[in-house]
Amino acid sequence: MKPRAAIVGVGATSFYRRGASEPRPLLELVGEAILRALTDAGLSVSDIDGFAYFAGGFDTPSIMEMLGVPGITFTAALTGYGGGSAGCIGLAASAIAAGDARTIVCVGATQQSRRRFGAVAAQYEGTPQSAFHEHAGLVSPGQMFALLARRHMHEFGTTREHFAMVALNARANAQTNSEAAMHGRPMTREDYFAAPMIADPHCLFDFCLENDGAVATVVTSVERARDLRQQPVQVLGAVHGGARDWGRAIYWMNMPDGCFARSGHSALAAELYGRAGIGPADLDVAQIYDHFTSQVLIQLEDYGLCAKGEGGPFVASGAIARGGALPVNTDGGQLSCGFIWGMTHVREAVLQLRHTAANQIAGAELALVTGGPSSLPVSGLILGRAP
Amino acid sequence: MKPRAAIVGVGATSFYRRGASEPRPLLELVGEAILRALTDAGLSVSDIDGFAYFAGGFDTPSIMEMLGVPGITFTAALTGYGGGSAGCIGLAASAIAAGDARTIVCVGATQQSRRRFGAVAAQYEGTPQSAFHEHAGLVSPGQMFALLARRHMHEFGTTREHFAMVALNARANAQTNSEAAMHGRPMTREDYFAAPMIADPHCLFDFCLENDGAVATVVTSVERARDLRQQPVQVLGAVHGGARDWGRAIYWMNMPDGCFARSGHSALAAELYGRAGIGPADLDVAQIYDHFTSQVLIQLEDYGLCAKGEGGPFVASGAIARGGALPVNTDGGQLSCGFIWGMTHVREAVLQLRHTAANQIAGAELALVTGGPSSLPVSGLILGRAP
Repeated sequence: MKPRAAIVGVGATSFYRRGASEPRPLLELVGEAILRALTDAGLSVSDIDGFAYFAGGFDTPSIMEMLGVPGITFTAALTGYGGGSAGCIGLAASAIAAGDARTIVCVGATQQSRRRFGAVAAQYEGTPQSAFHEHAGLVSPGQMFALLARRHMHEFGTTREHFAMVALNARANAQTNSEAAMHGRPMTREDYFAAPMIADPHCLFDFCLENDGAVATVVTSVERARDLRQQPVQVLGAVHGGARDWGRAIYWMNMPDGCFARSGHSALAAELYGRAGIGPADLDVAQIYDHFTSQVLIQLEDYGLCAKGEGGPFVASGAIARGGALPVNTDGGQLSCGFIWGMTHVREAVLQLRHTAANQIAGAELALVTGGPSSLPVSGLILGRAP
Repeated sequence: MKPRAAIVGVGATSFYRRGASEPRPLLELVGEAILRALTDAGLSVSDIDGFAYFAGGFDTPSIMEMLGVPGITFTAALTGYGGGSAGCIGLAASAIAAGDARTIVCVGATQQSRRRFGAVAAQYEGTPQSAFHEHAGLVSPGQMFALLARRHMHEFGTTREHFAMVALNARANAQTNSEAAMHGRPMTREDYFAAPMIADPHCLFDFCLENDGAVATVVTSVERARDLRQQPVQVLGAVHGGARDWGRAIYWMNMPDGCFARSGHSALAAELYGRAGIGPADLDVAQIYDHFTSQVLIQLEDYGLCAKGEGGPFVASGAIARGGALPVNTDGGQLSCGFIWGMTHVREAVLQLRHTAANQIAGAELALVTGGPSSLPVSGLILGRAP
């Protein structure tokens, strides 16, 4: 398969909890991440001619004015939320392949003040679907995904020990990554089980972090990437979207049999591998969207990295650890490094394939990145170290 | 140049003023327009595998659930507002060319209740730029674009007689288009000059309509289009984006010399013609975004349809009438047919190139459609009747 674009720059702010630092405007966070990504790539603001996002709310003219970007020929966002984090790289890659732009910045950012994850999810407020959720006490994603986790336990014998393995793996990786928010704060199995239950079966440590921050990447053509500063990382395949059943599941908690205990990715995984021309066994490392520990092991199943229902035993086997068969969330993930709606996973995959990650997996050539599970679209991305 | 996709279906609701009819939910309007476009194309909801929008706020999972769309592999929106109406067809075309989806629905919709155009523009409220606007009394697009119109009058000798020609042309076309909101309500030059001044030099009839309604189009590959029900209309070129200066102009009313009396399209027009492989003289018909009459004649200049500063004399010459050199807004436009953020213009161009428009221009083969002027992105589209 012919790669359709390459990631040539990545940049991030620090990931910090409100209270530990003064709040900074979202636009300032976005600008800092973009400038860092440009510096990383050896490019300047005048090279930018496009923006690709995975959620609404970014204001391209304000970003252009802040940075001094002279003009653009592409600015679009996948609809939805964090589910599109991997897919927005594909949006940029398709635009570049189609000739719509030459150098596209993909950026994600979040501020705790903009959204409290324990509160009623903003996208549901006042909508028809909220009438189905709220009387049942389902007012936040944590509660909704708890139902899917419990169902997976029921169907397949998954246990909280399995969820703990995901959390402990992330926290262990954060201890050797100085950029991780949980660097210097190790966690034991006993700590995990002593944590308060938030939405049964999800305890405190099954939830991802909340923080402020931004992550940006720079995407350009495969040809141009060869002349730039960094080892190019190629977009071998990208896919976003999903099945109506999953959209209904997450919006209305009205799940056909095929959705309960699933991640919403199974409809896309085969398409993704087909586009990239590889299979699950070819992957060297995986950055799996980890808003909840349970959804990591379910995605591992839905991407064919283990058999359906075997996610628990797979993580218990040590497969996802740095010395395991498929190291997962090597920077500490959203559980222990930082939560920027999935964009940290894109960045970590790039660093792994450049062979410059804090927790480098030796010889990594192929990486999987997932976005979501959340409402549609969910997304997946396969990146490869350029030959 | 190789066309990259084709429009194979168009559909619209009626365009009605609130008060004349019961309000209908936006989602219902969207659904009706999509179903009409599918019927027009001879396709069914299960053929849809993508959505492309030109403004945020559309909720793909809800549209999928409403219609029963089984699954998708593309859902994205250009950032911004009506400026992307022409460009969203290009977003769909690039996705199809890149293999991201096969059959993409582009839809636009509006409800008067969602936005009053005389009120402070929602996108400016509470933003830094509002601090620059509001103390100067610039709280709505009509007031902001009035400055650009006045400047054009100052620089080039444009008069209200010229603006009147644009309004009268649109109203005349509406008289022979039974779908137009102003069908059966003719207007004379005397009516125009008797109208109240809203934002000098823009009187009532220089403003577009406000109404409820939706317009949808179906985009697929050039090859597949050949086997469908309608004469295919090919996407020869599409472009969106623009220059930082224009974005700043409309956001902050802080205009370098190159922006005053302009439409924001000049940076894109040459690129658009290059992509389509044609020039302005090749066009048979043009659907020009007409939120204000003054911006129609300025866009005619910026797309090279007449010399810079000659927009007034050009429209006064009768060139934009149905018997003129370049018929413009043949359905009555947003001034007299319906205002769906520019999507009516895409539909009318398709009908002209099929040779089925109410006010058909004989033998039309090539059409220009513009989106915006508004904040970035603005956009342009060149469509061609398939050979």
